[in-house]
Amino acid sequence: MTETVSYLPSMGRLLYSLSDSACALAEEFLRPHDISLAQWVVLSALWGQDCLSVSALAEYSGKKTAALSRLLDRMESRGLVTRVSVVGDKRSVNIHLTKEGQELSHLIGMYKHVNGILLSDFSEEEQQQLFPMLERMLKNANGLAASS
Amino acid sequence: MTETVSYLPSMGRLLYSLSDSACALAEEFLRPHDISLAQWVVLSALWGQDCLSVSALAEYSGKKTAALSRLLDRMESRGLVTRVSVVGDKRSVNIHLTKEGQELSHLIGMYKHVNGILLSDFSEEEQQQLFPMLERMLKNANGLAASS
Repeated sequence: MTETVSYLPSMGRLLYSLSDSACALAEEFLRPHDISLAQWVVLSALWGQDCLSVSALAEYSGKKTAALSRLLDRMESRGLVTRVSVVGDKRSVNIHLTKEGQELSHLIGMYKHVNGILLSDFSEEEQQQLFPMLERMLKNANGLAASS
Repeated sequence: MTETVSYLPSMGRLLYSLSDSACALAEEFLRPHDISLAQWVVLSALWGQDCLSVSALAEYSGKKTAALSRLLDRMESRGLVTRVSVVGDKRSVNIHLTKEGQELSHLIGMYKHVNGILLSDFSEEEQQQLFPMLERMLKNANGLAASS
């Protein structure tokens, strides 16, 4: 017996499916480099600015400190980053890229690869319509007045 | 020291943030009813058609069978659904709503509530542009030719 359940016209569901598919594309791109998407997010921050505090990385990645700390443990074992104590404040550490972490900086282009697939048949004009609409939805979701 | 890391113009990141925010809005709506979003997804399928196979629910919810089975355990304990063996195939079970599960069917409107927040300042015309663009991105992500 085959049953098909029709989908609701739910924006939340559509966004969830899109996010899931975009993550899968990103993971597929990164797999040959043995880097997870979560690791790439941290690396992408450090490629922009080496030496960041754990709290800056937590804010950037949207992760809680405990989860980020476990992720940084794995990245340190993998030889991608090092923790360095802050001079004058021994309880604080900054995160630095290792040479291996720096050498992967060409992977910053991953998001352009994913954008390219998602938007492959979108005209420049359509892309210029779409991004601001998504930004407006995000502002609405987070309870901020739209800037327009 | 306050550091701010600027964001990349990544569609994947934007979709992830949007999906995350939409899920948070849904969970907030459902919390007073003691229903999780994952439970609501299963209930929404059954409100449309009571009595579905586990495999139909797995496809609808995008969950693997093992994860869905644990979810159904919790929903059964909570008195929302029951498992009923299929006549003539004792290894198969169908999922039915209980009276309590049926009585929550007004919560089907949750996705309209979330749509309403996300799209609060969108004109009808803008909404009619946006949904098909998101559907096209999903097709692109899943490797299907756009229908247009």
